[in-house]
Amino acid sequence: MITSTQNPRIKHLLLLEQKSAQRKADGLFVVEGRREVEHCLSAGYTIRTAFVCEEISPLPTFPRGGKMDGRKPPLGEVGWGSIVEIIPVSRNVYERIAYRGGTEGIVAVVEARRTQLSDLQLSASPLIVVLESVEKPGNLGAVLRSADAAGADAVVVCDPLTDLYNPNLIRSSIGALFTVPCVACTTEECIAFFKERGIRILTAQLQDSKPYYDTPMTGPTAIVMGTEATGLTDQWREAADAHIRIPMFGRLDSLNVSVSAAILLFEAVRQRKSETLKS
Amino acid sequence: MITSTQNPRIKHLLLLEQKSAQRKADGLFVVEGRREVEHCLSAGYTIRTAFVCEEISPLPTFPRGGKMDGRKPPLGEVGWGSIVEIIPVSRNVYERIAYRGGTEGIVAVVEARRTQLSDLQLSASPLIVVLESVEKPGNLGAVLRSADAAGADAVVVCDPLTDLYNPNLIRSSIGALFTVPCVACTTEECIAFFKERGIRILTAQLQDSKPYYDTPMTGPTAIVMGTEATGLTDQWREAADAHIRIPMFGRLDSLNVSVSAAILLFEAVRQRKSETLKS
Repeated sequence: MITSTQNPRIKHLLLLEQKSAQRKADGLFVVEGRREVEHCLSAGYTIRTAFVCEEISPLPTFPRGGKMDGRKPPLGEVGWGSIVEIIPVSRNVYERIAYRGGTEGIVAVVEARRTQLSDLQLSASPLIVVLESVEKPGNLGAVLRSADAAGADAVVVCDPLTDLYNPNLIRSSIGALFTVPCVACTTEECIAFFKERGIRILTAQLQDSKPYYDTPMTGPTAIVMGTEATGLTDQWREAADAHIRIPMFGRLDSLNVSVSAAILLFEAVRQRKSETLKS
Repeated sequence: MITSTQNPRIKHLLLLEQKSAQRKADGLFVVEGRREVEHCLSAGYTIRTAFVCEEISPLPTFPRGGKMDGRKPPLGEVGWGSIVEIIPVSRNVYERIAYRGGTEGIVAVVEARRTQLSDLQLSASPLIVVLESVEKPGNLGAVLRSADAAGADAVVVCDPLTDLYNPNLIRSSIGALFTVPCVACTTEECIAFFKERGIRILTAQLQDSKPYYDTPMTGPTAIVMGTEATGLTDQWREAADAHIRIPMFGRLDSLNVSVSAAILLFEAVRQRKSETLKS
């Protein structure tokens, strides 16, 4: 059991949590929380090391007793097939490495992977959200959560340098980073991909646009959103098949990007599923 | 100018920021940021004291020069009619009292007031959001922001002990606490109010419910939501005119309460405004 916060493996874990450059150099990232680790495993990620504090929350599917000590668990064991190594840690070490107040007892170092547009397995009538850039990693996490709920096929970020493994992103996604395919690429690649596959591009913009609910979204649809501060670039506006807006009736004229994404995605859901429309 | 963080007025301000009991005892709360203070003033609140750091962000509508020193500004001055007192503070004091990194230069102590259900001025076909209780103040702030965007008439919290002046709430509402009427009352009061006025109660619940988009919301409508953890109580379920749910198509089965509120509110907007429906 690791009992010192000065242990080199704990120091390395903290670097991975804190530094994007460290994550990129090592091809590793950090996931905290039992549910998140489970989603990560079922998405096929390899967990290099799971640091576990049994005092906080015994994990019943873990091997017990002396076998916990750095042992590689049997492959194929239910839910834990891709954990290479499990290391027990003391409560003080856990409290140092956990962000969320140490309630769940597991922090994992996971091998990164990069999904490309060409890797996406799209449904017959795909529904995709595109963010032209990401102002705050937590916002992208929240968009992923909305995309999971609406059953969207993918979320695309048009900034190839985006760090999809930022801890705030993973945390605010509550695991949706592992349930919704997420791609970082250039705007050019993304527009070309949509045009090739006949996916209609709907850009969210105030000028020269119609209310989103008067725009058809039953066919293959990509909803593209810019930043709260500057909106979308001309490149996207010109590539668009339709311009849509969320009409605002208040005095603040401002919705969070994950809230806007949810409103637009669930309009697509409504158009595709509503019994009222079918009757 | 106050230059010491040990100044008694600064200490009192910090207590108001940190302690709900202090806010209740004094009938005062704290608002930070220029835009938030402006919304607060235009909602008719009285600002007891505005602590201003001119070094950070000169406020052009403020009286200048020697007149800044504790002077009461002329009543009726544009946008600043209800500021009783303005006190300049040094940068170090400002950085101690500001939550948001000191970018806007104003923190205000404001007189609280309590809105009752009977104070609400409702439109002909009101749209109201009810939260049965509030798990996190920041969530209520985000619901207020969604309610502002959808032009909702009011947000009601069925817990009369809710502190509507929690700093996290005010911050996450980005001022919507001052643009959307917000009432804290009991469930009994709230149900009686809706029944008296013929406002239809739609409860968000998984069991025994229809998708929200197949439920009419063009008449007077209250959308009632429980907590993420425990859902709604039987009292609300039994008082309901219809039960609605947001169908979920992902693997996480979870939406943030402000996102759910926005999806439901904007469906009411769509049903009331869509050109597609009218044609």
